[in-house]
Parts: sequence; C-alpha cells; structure tokens
Amino acid sequence: MKNILFVITLVFAFASNLSAQDLLPSWNDGNAKKSITSFVEKVTDPKSKSYVKPEERIAVFDNDGTLWSEQPIYFQLIFAIDRVKALAKDHPEWKTEQPFKAVLENDKEALVKSGKEGLFKLIMASHAGMTTVEFEEIVRKWITTAKHPKFKKLYTELVYQPMLELLTYLRANEFKTYIVSGGGIEFMRPWTEQVYGIPPEQVVGSSIKTKLEFVDGNPVLIRQAQLDFLDDKEGKPIAINKHIGRRPIAAFGNSDGDLQMLQWTCAGDGARFCLYVHHTDSEREWAYDRKSHIGKLDKGLDEAQVEGWTVVDMKKDWKVIYPN
Amino acid sequence: MKNILFVITLVFAFASNLSAQDLLPSWNDGNAKKSITSFVEKVTDPKSKSYVKPEERIAVFDNDGTLWSEQPIYFQLIFAIDRVKALAKDHPEWKTEQPFKAVLENDKEALVKSGKEGLFKLIMASHAGMTTVEFEEIVRKWITTAKHPKFKKLYTELVYQPMLELLTYLRANEFKTYIVSGGGIEFMRPWTEQVYGIPPEQVVGSSIKTKLEFVDGNPVLIRQAQLDFLDDKEGKPIAINKHIGRRPIAAFGNSDGDLQMLQWTCAGDGARFCLYVHHTDSEREWAYDRKSHIGKLDKGLDEAQVEGWTVVDMKKDWKVIYPN
Repeated sequence: MKNILFVITLVFAFASNLSAQDLLPSWNDGNAKKSITSFVEKVTDPKSKSYVKPEERIAVFDNDGTLWSEQPIYFQLIFAIDRVKALAKDHPEWKTEQPFKAVLENDKEALVKSGKEGLFKLIMASHAGMTTVEFEEIVRKWITTAKHPKFKKLYTELVYQPMLELLTYLRANEFKTYIVSGGGIEFMRPWTEQVYGIPPEQVVGSSIKTKLEFVDGNPVLIRQAQLDFLDDKEGKPIAINKHIGRRPIAAFGNSDGDLQMLQWTCAGDGARFCLYVHHTDSEREWAYDRKSHIGKLDKGLDEAQVEGWTVVDMKKDWKVIYPN
Repeated sequence: MKNILFVITLVFAFASNLSAQDLLPSWNDGNAKKSITSFVEKVTDPKSKSYVKPEERIAVFDNDGTLWSEQPIYFQLIFAIDRVKALAKDHPEWKTEQPFKAVLENDKEALVKSGKEGLFKLIMASHAGMTTVEFEEIVRKWITTAKHPKFKKLYTELVYQPMLELLTYLRANEFKTYIVSGGGIEFMRPWTEQVYGIPPEQVVGSSIKTKLEFVDGNPVLIRQAQLDFLDDKEGKPIAINKHIGRRPIAAFGNSDGDLQMLQWTCAGDGARFCLYVHHTDSEREWAYDRKSHIGKLDKGLDEAQVEGWTVVDMKKDWKVIYPN
C-alpha cells in the first residue's frame, strides 16, 4: 500500500509539471488563448466551484474549417470528384449524364447548376455500393496521395497547428475529444486517429445507410445509396445525444452549421466554453464569413457577441496556420 | 527523467500483480472460464502472434439476458407498464383503449393479443413526449425504486455477478467494454456507469427520434413517438459500425438476436472470441432456449457448435448468479 501511494504521488508530481508547460505555443498571447486556459484551469481544479469530473470533460470539434481547411470546396467533395473520374471508365453513361458530365469535363458552372440533387448523386455514386472495408481502403489511399489544388500538399497537412495543440492540451487535462462534423463519418474515421489523435469511436458525422449481407458465408456491411443522418445544424445536438449521451462542456466550430452545437453545449449547467474559429487570414489561409457559400458564419458571429463566446481571429491569434 | 522511469517501473510492477490475481472468482474452473482467460492472455501478450493493440481491444455485450435477467418479461417493458399506470390519471381515454385498457386492468391475455402494434403504442406513450433530460430523470427514479415481481429486488440487483467480474477483468486488460442491446439507449444510459462501469458513450441501443426545440430560449431535445433505430439482429453490426467504427474482437450475447453481432465479430481477422450465455438454471434464475418467447436461443446454439464459440452453462459454470 505504501508503494502504491508513493507511485500516485510521483505520478501527480509528474502531471503538474506537464500542465505548467505551455502546450499552446502556436497561440499568440491574448484574449482567445487566455479564455481557453482560464476555462481549463477552472474545470480541472478540484478546489474550484467550477470543477468538472474527468468523465464529464467532453469537448466536441467541428472538422471542416475548424480542424482543417475547407476551401475552395469541402475536401470530401474533391474526394467525390476524384472518385467519379476514377470510376468513369466503367460508366460510359456518365459522359452525357449530369452532374457526372460536368465533373468529367471540369465544368464548374454546370456542376454548381446541378444543385443539391446533383451533389447528392455525386456523393452516392462515389460513396455507396461497396463494403465498409472497401470504402475505408479507398479513403485511405486517397487521403495519403491526393494533393490540394492550391497548396500542393496532402489534405492532412492542411490541418491547423494551433488546433492540434488545443486537442493535445485538452487531452492532457483529461478531456475526451470528439469530432462532430457535417462530413461523412466513414470518410473521416480512417485517418483521424493518426492526424488528430481522435479514435474512430470518437468521430461523429453524416452517414449513409448500411446493410448486412453474407458473401461466401462472411458478413459484410454494404454501403447503400441512401442518406442515414445529416450531422449539420440541429442535427449536431441530436447526434451528440445519440453517440455520446452526455452534454459536452466545450464546443468548437467555425460556421452557422455549428451554431446549434455551441448553443446546446453552452446551455448546460456549470462552466461551459464555446469558441468560433473566424477565418480572417487571406494571406496564410482564406478570409470569409457572413457571405461565404462555404462555412458561412453570420448568425453565429452575432450570437458569439451576445453570449460572450470566444472568437478566434486566425490572423491575429495564430502564430502559424499549418504544421511546419 | 530518472524519476519518470521509476514511476513507470513501479506502475508496471503493480499492474502485473493485478493480472496475477483471479479476477473471475464466481466462475467455476472449466472450459468456459479457461476459454476466456486463454483468449485474453493471448491477445495481451506482446510476444504472441495473436497480440492485439489496446485501442483495438473492443468487447461488446448484449444487455437483456447477458448482463441482467430478462424474465418474466424484458425489464424495460415493466418500466413501460409502470409508466402507463402512473400516467393513466391524465388519460381517461386509456380506460377503453387497447393496449392501455389491458395494462390498467392487468389483463395479460389482452396485452399479448395487442401484438407488436400494441407494444409499439405502449413504448411510445411511456418513452416519448418529454425532453431527454426529463426522461433520464424518470428512468433514474424508476430504476432506483421499482422491484422485480419474483425476486422483490431492484432490477439493478439482478445483474450477473460473473459477468460483472468479466467486465472488470477485460477492462483490467485494457479492453474497452460496450453494451450493444436491443433495449432503449436512453433507458440504459442513466445507470450503466454505476452498475456495470460502462459510461453513456459506450452504450449502444435502440432509439426513438429526437427533435431540437427552443423553450424560453433554451435548447432542449424532445423525444418523438417515432422509431429511429432498432438495435437487434442485423441491426447490431450496423450499430457497431456506426457508433464504434471498429470491429470488436470479442462479443457476448444470449439469444438469436445477438447472432449477427457474434458473426460480425468473429468473422474479423486475427484472434476473436464469441460467447453465448445459456440460461440453464431454473432454480437460481430461469432455464430457456430454443422455444422461449423471450431471449430465444436456437440458431445461435447451433452456430456456436459449428463455430466452436464458448457456451456458458449458467448452472454449471457460475458459482453465483447475482451479487451477494
């Protein structure tokens, strides 16, 4: 027993050393950084009236525009386009059928014109019709080879260094970090553990239905061309309730699509933290908000003001955008 | 650095002490117990060719009939009946309307006759129409006060002691334990952490839809009288894929409703473990299998034989059934 107590004492001594270090070196000193560290210090201090037990320290993060870039279009849409091009040789009918014709001819105007229905067709043609294991392999191959059109880097290199540090900092303080994204749940899971340290079971996203079938006596899950759940706007609190079953105490987003998630999080009792990443850096990344067709941040910006949520000014608050 | 190494050494020494103890004292020595410990020793031994990294050590458990009893009817159905009785004063129309009339008059025959449709009405009348927070409170109150008709004990006292030990044993070996049950996800979450050590985010189950609404400016999730997902049979692998996103390496069930979950689990590569709890003890619990209207185990018993899965004979393999 004496030995165990000694071990515990040493572990604690080691842990407090850790928290004393600056785990957020890419954040400039300022209100944004200070609001984060103040919140974390307060909920982890057993003597504070805002103390939160470790198991209740749930933090949820949007992905597109919050953990990685989302311009000029959502990266998953580029994946869908690349996929349609790769599959075109088996689909001669796509040469004359929209939105596939637009994709194959790089006709952006026609693609935009195909609207939500066109987008749906594109997603289903590229994301359904294979087993979950096959799809995982397809994503894994794409994510480790495809390059961003502007930066000529892997998409996983276009993650935000300050947010990576924030994830690590929260986990060092016994937070459980989740992704809650409008993006596809099975599009993210193959790489989030390696890139963000977030394991598959802590990734929540939009999904299509799957069906259990037996092939040569082996069970497989076949991805169906049918929407299961859209994890956006009011869908986010619903998905959080379904997947996590606890209300988070901290939420991080960048668009109006995250507003309900932030509202849901910050409406809980006790200390809460809500943060918007505001894209203000047209040189190092992109600058967009109220009128953007992607990642529109309008109502959210107003509500952040009213509620006193933290708004990160990427240009001012972040020393670097991407890792190295 | 020297200190840290010392701490790590001590922690490891302490950990190996733990694993040397018998963490399964309520299991009689025999094939069932041996199959469990052999599997766990093999997947946790870094030198074994069957070694599995801790993050992949996912174990899934059915609840009704696997972790707690399910006779004379599913406990959640007793909850629904109790709830309808409690709400009856506000529903005078129930006096003449089935299946409510049957419930209020304790008319089992009429209740059975109302069939699946009657059951659906009963579940929706008792489980929908309130916020998620209110429902949690209702469940919490019932589960800490209602008593089982035969044993006159709280339902949470009718959990299987050997299975509690198994959960602890697996977690001590760095398994992540999940419930994957046909029961309601929000019916289980309020008490599984305290009773099984399984937190809400590791509970998967059937669900009804929820809707985000604002009451006095505060977001609430209202439970809708509409099925969202039925987590039974082929639904179990689908739910595992959706919620966990990894294939488990061990699965535990007791009925044909768990068969697809066991098939899905044991069809994976590498070392796998599938186990059926067979209800064979009419004295200490109940004895039922191929012809039971609840927890029917027929195809599963045949498949266990063919596949070499472990079948626990409750009467023979378990020293005790319930705690104390």
